[in-house]
Amino acid sequence: MEDPWQKAYDFAVAVARKAGEIRKAGESEIRVMTKSSTVDLVTKTDERVEKIIISSLKEEFGEDAHCFIGEESVAKGEPCVLSDKPTWIIDPVDGTTNFVHGFPFVAVSIAFAVNKEVEFGVVYSCLEDKMYKARKGKGAFCDDEPIQVSDMKDINKSIIISEHGTDRSPEKVTKIFSTMQKILCIPVHGLRGSGTAATNMCLVATGAVEAFFEIGIHCWDIAAGVIIVKEAGGILLDVDGGPFDLMSRRMVSANNELIAKRIIKEIEIFPVGRDDAPAEK
Amino acid sequence: MEDPWQKAYDFAVAVARKAGEIRKAGESEIRVMTKSSTVDLVTKTDERVEKIIISSLKEEFGEDAHCFIGEESVAKGEPCVLSDKPTWIIDPVDGTTNFVHGFPFVAVSIAFAVNKEVEFGVVYSCLEDKMYKARKGKGAFCDDEPIQVSDMKDINKSIIISEHGTDRSPEKVTKIFSTMQKILCIPVHGLRGSGTAATNMCLVATGAVEAFFEIGIHCWDIAAGVIIVKEAGGILLDVDGGPFDLMSRRMVSANNELIAKRIIKEIEIFPVGRDDAPAEK
Repeated sequence: MEDPWQKAYDFAVAVARKAGEIRKAGESEIRVMTKSSTVDLVTKTDERVEKIIISSLKEEFGEDAHCFIGEESVAKGEPCVLSDKPTWIIDPVDGTTNFVHGFPFVAVSIAFAVNKEVEFGVVYSCLEDKMYKARKGKGAFCDDEPIQVSDMKDINKSIIISEHGTDRSPEKVTKIFSTMQKILCIPVHGLRGSGTAATNMCLVATGAVEAFFEIGIHCWDIAAGVIIVKEAGGILLDVDGGPFDLMSRRMVSANNELIAKRIIKEIEIFPVGRDDAPAEK
Repeated sequence: MEDPWQKAYDFAVAVARKAGEIRKAGESEIRVMTKSSTVDLVTKTDERVEKIIISSLKEEFGEDAHCFIGEESVAKGEPCVLSDKPTWIIDPVDGTTNFVHGFPFVAVSIAFAVNKEVEFGVVYSCLEDKMYKARKGKGAFCDDEPIQVSDMKDINKSIIISEHGTDRSPEKVTKIFSTMQKILCIPVHGLRGSGTAATNMCLVATGAVEAFFEIGIHCWDIAAGVIIVKEAGGILLDVDGGPFDLMSRRMVSANNELIAKRIIKEIEIFPVGRDDAPAEK
């Protein structure tokens, strides 16, 4: 078989759209709970949509054919380890806080990794009704139109995205704000934050912003975005300038290395446990 | 005549939509210039759209029937004084930086004030294709559906919007970041920023966020938003808790007084010249 994953890719797009529609329909009765902190929200919708996505995939491809890493499954104690086996990495509602408030960026993120590398990714920004997708070596698309990162090489004419996250410990928050202030004063054209990492990466991929960085994100927030940014011509690095590691919870995604490295000079790094080291999370 | 301004209101909605469409069409050839700083951008489109709006209004209502305050006219030396006479207050492209980059929030803002009070306001968020409007005593709408502020009274469950602005002087930037950090750590659910004050106010009016505050905005950024927030049930205050003043370049808009006053406790005020005191701008 020449193209073993085309069927899975097409199916992921359909499932992401279906998941986004379930979510839109469920908006009138949102039940909000908290996870790691009082501002780390989860809703019954998150859990329900993740179950629907995983059961659809199992039904289509067989109960034990693939592994699964899902945000809500991991929250309930399922393992979060990326092996060489074909693995779905799923965030049913990226931007749960936005979802709860009706802020217009909410995404379904579905990625598929083989041999620890993301083979394809789908981000459905459901309130905007925009379907982003990319497959390794086949380009990145928004609603079937090819997308490409910005060709800007001048940091002073760039927009940079980051997020404050859901950890409110003073030490981390101070480093996050200090980094943002230094980047703003390089100066850049502006700082933005949509409230969802998956959408932020798509904004890099379409060229609306030059870079997005964050410490504290999880693999399910960014796995689909990783391949979308790469296939749109962008790059991924660790926040220390080294190679990007999907499970490290640290990432710089940018239109090019020049912009990425200039931002990296300003990033104040703070420790976060890896996604695949549950004891430290 | 019982309803002297209905015709002007309807005309403003049509002009805002037309202006938004001109702008979308012109996106392929954006020429960027700077104003007060290297990150305070203006494009030929801004100037062209403002001219079209003002000439349409003059053609409809007579050359000298009304006064005009337009962002780009003021930048070119026209007076910025709000008298008791019927006055149009216009921002042809709120979110010019977003516009230049293709970031998805860009708005046309048109307000109409009589006796120094905003009578009606129209904000057309043209990339989202959402038309927000409100008239004094007649409610606020998005695409003809009534909108309403959030009923949240708990600051810990609120989203707050603010912006970094285009002034990069270290003293101001430090106060802006310090304020944002203190508000984030109240804690609140999150901080956001769309990059346009007009859209931010509409996000307060729809209930997607609880409050938006900024020091350094101009009357044309917020005049339409002011009546949209009020008619959606929200309130406006000065950043020191006193009465709101459209020309003061300082504003807190919120869903209710409780949320507004809680934020005001954290705002570090820095001086900005008034819109109607040109020498200090």
